[in-house]
Amino acid sequence: MSDTKPRILTGDRPTGQLHLGHFIGSHRHRLALQDKYECFFLVADLHMLTTKPDKASIEAIADNARAIVLDHLAIGIDPDKVTFYLQSAVHEVYEMNLLLGSLVTVERIQQLPTIKDMANAAGMDQVPYSLLGYPVLQSADILMPRGNLVPVGQDNEAHVEMTRQIARRFNLAYDEVFPIPDAMVVGGTLVGTDGNAKMSKSLNNAVFLADDETTVNRRVMGMYTDPKRIRADIPGTVEGNPVFEYLDFFHPDGANPAIPESQRNPGGTVVEDLKDRYRKGAVGDVEVKQTLAQAINDFLEPTRERRAHFESRTGFVDHLLEAGTQRARAEARETLMAMKKAMGLTGIWNRIRRSGEKFAKRQAATREA
Amino acid sequence: MSDTKPRILTGDRPTGQLHLGHFIGSHRHRLALQDKYECFFLVADLHMLTTKPDKASIEAIADNARAIVLDHLAIGIDPDKVTFYLQSAVHEVYEMNLLLGSLVTVERIQQLPTIKDMANAAGMDQVPYSLLGYPVLQSADILMPRGNLVPVGQDNEAHVEMTRQIARRFNLAYDEVFPIPDAMVVGGTLVGTDGNAKMSKSLNNAVFLADDETTVNRRVMGMYTDPKRIRADIPGTVEGNPVFEYLDFFHPDGANPAIPESQRNPGGTVVEDLKDRYRKGAVGDVEVKQTLAQAINDFLEPTRERRAHFESRTGFVDHLLEAGTQRARAEARETLMAMKKAMGLTGIWNRIRRSGEKFAKRQAATREA
Repeated sequence: MSDTKPRILTGDRPTGQLHLGHFIGSHRHRLALQDKYECFFLVADLHMLTTKPDKASIEAIADNARAIVLDHLAIGIDPDKVTFYLQSAVHEVYEMNLLLGSLVTVERIQQLPTIKDMANAAGMDQVPYSLLGYPVLQSADILMPRGNLVPVGQDNEAHVEMTRQIARRFNLAYDEVFPIPDAMVVGGTLVGTDGNAKMSKSLNNAVFLADDETTVNRRVMGMYTDPKRIRADIPGTVEGNPVFEYLDFFHPDGANPAIPESQRNPGGTVVEDLKDRYRKGAVGDVEVKQTLAQAINDFLEPTRERRAHFESRTGFVDHLLEAGTQRARAEARETLMAMKKAMGLTGIWNRIRRSGEKFAKRQAATREA
Repeated sequence: MSDTKPRILTGDRPTGQLHLGHFIGSHRHRLALQDKYECFFLVADLHMLTTKPDKASIEAIADNARAIVLDHLAIGIDPDKVTFYLQSAVHEVYEMNLLLGSLVTVERIQQLPTIKDMANAAGMDQVPYSLLGYPVLQSADILMPRGNLVPVGQDNEAHVEMTRQIARRFNLAYDEVFPIPDAMVVGGTLVGTDGNAKMSKSLNNAVFLADDETTVNRRVMGMYTDPKRIRADIPGTVEGNPVFEYLDFFHPDGANPAIPESQRNPGGTVVEDLKDRYRKGAVGDVEVKQTLAQAINDFLEPTRERRAHFESRTGFVDHLLEAGTQRARAEARETLMAMKKAMGLTGIWNRIRRSGEKFAKRQAATREA
């Protein structure tokens, strides 16, 4: 391990393309972290199987994995700085998962509210065994590259705490193998275009990073705003109004900008002015939305250029995933070996194998003599 | 798979040598089954880790694994008929375990009384995640060689029923990959030498298959009998008396013989006569115990001869375990491949890898040109 930067592990379930909600909640932070950390970004298909084990979802994994990697490159993730890998193709993760499962109790996992929430969200009335093991598999993911830092949303901080506990228990019971990873709580939630609390593909209220200009315009023009405002001269509410929340995130003049610094215009008054006029009933929804659509399209313009560049290199994304997965496998082999060595598990098979092979050789020699 | 015999999967946790209780409950039945079935006997070290993940227990696995295989050979298991393998050395089992875990709910597993019992027996007040998964891992064990029949004690029949359910669910959701295994409930429990309900190493009330004559004599002479009988002329109770239970199992004249047919003496009256005299207060404990010790030693004599024979072939047991594990791995690879193919999981990585490698080749060609 020649790279001495601390390591980050994070990832995405391959259930679809990334949207602005992902960007706000997670991926903009990855951009900021890629220079200071050695980054492992996993395509978490085994996690997807815990709630979507159906054939159609599995069939979509490959394309979704590619789309996710391309989305990363499009927003400016540097392919030379990040290891993208396909979780299911790293055999050692399955082994780590099973071995770590003895270091945490069922009761402890059941204290996490997230598991039941995930089951409910997936329309399951009972929790599959593998879904209960979600945080155990997450621990395997984090500990596999011996991650130091895990950027997570508030709701997943408890999972990292469990990983810390598992790592500490392992180190105590066997040997100091794992660094104790820190959670880095990163923030931001984007409401859906329909005003729903969270942007989500399945709610059909998302603007995707891959949307073209026409699609962005259409989605923004259909956005939910203040429902009381049936005419442009009725005073409206700005607070909690999705259109203004988006403006604050994506307009160069926004109050809460999530766009790259080079695209920001601190001190600019366009958004403030729109808010004023909206409150007074002095602006139409169309003007507000057109301003927003323009802002999002401006923000996405460099993203689209990078996307077009990487898309033109046929096979490049697959190459990245392939090479990254091989890289992750090498890391995983090293970690699993250290784990098994600490536990005393490697010796068992090695000794039996060597002694067994010796016997077979002696037999062969006797037959020849 | 050229062998067309139906397949059996069963095994032992490598926690120590086998004793007469194991023989009565399980291993005598294996002897009877080895001719009609293709047998896979696993050394279940991963199962052991669910309740004994401490370093000392792990360190003892190799020797216990060897002792267990040798015990099998000693009682007459034919090394050419059975595949012995070390569970932890078959990587595919970890993968199967994770994938099968989405086909059974936590609630369903928690209905099994066995899990809590195992936790209690191991002195745990909470159930580790991996212990809750015991029946899932068992399913992976059984389905790995596509087992048809699983000899189990009554208390584990529900585990096989769960495997059947998991196999049916898999076949229905993806493709017909697994035969639905049948449980074959095999009977017999042997009380401990102390009169405790079950013979067990940890209760220190066991007679081991590897015990020599002197040790057998000592253990039998120390056995618990009817505590009311403080003198030989006091009438005693035969029913539930460990000494007579053992006589029925191990004496050639016994009423419930568990010894090989060649060693039995149907119609013989020695045990019946001892029971009569015991009930009347007309026989001393010493005579009864000496008869029993002789019977057990007679039963163990051919076992000792076979043990000495196989022990003299240094490395043979390791060779068996090594070759068996390689054999099991080949089976496991085939099964996991069929599973992943049915689920659509193989295609994902293969397609990405091939396309990624093609890209890298084109790049290299461009550089050369």
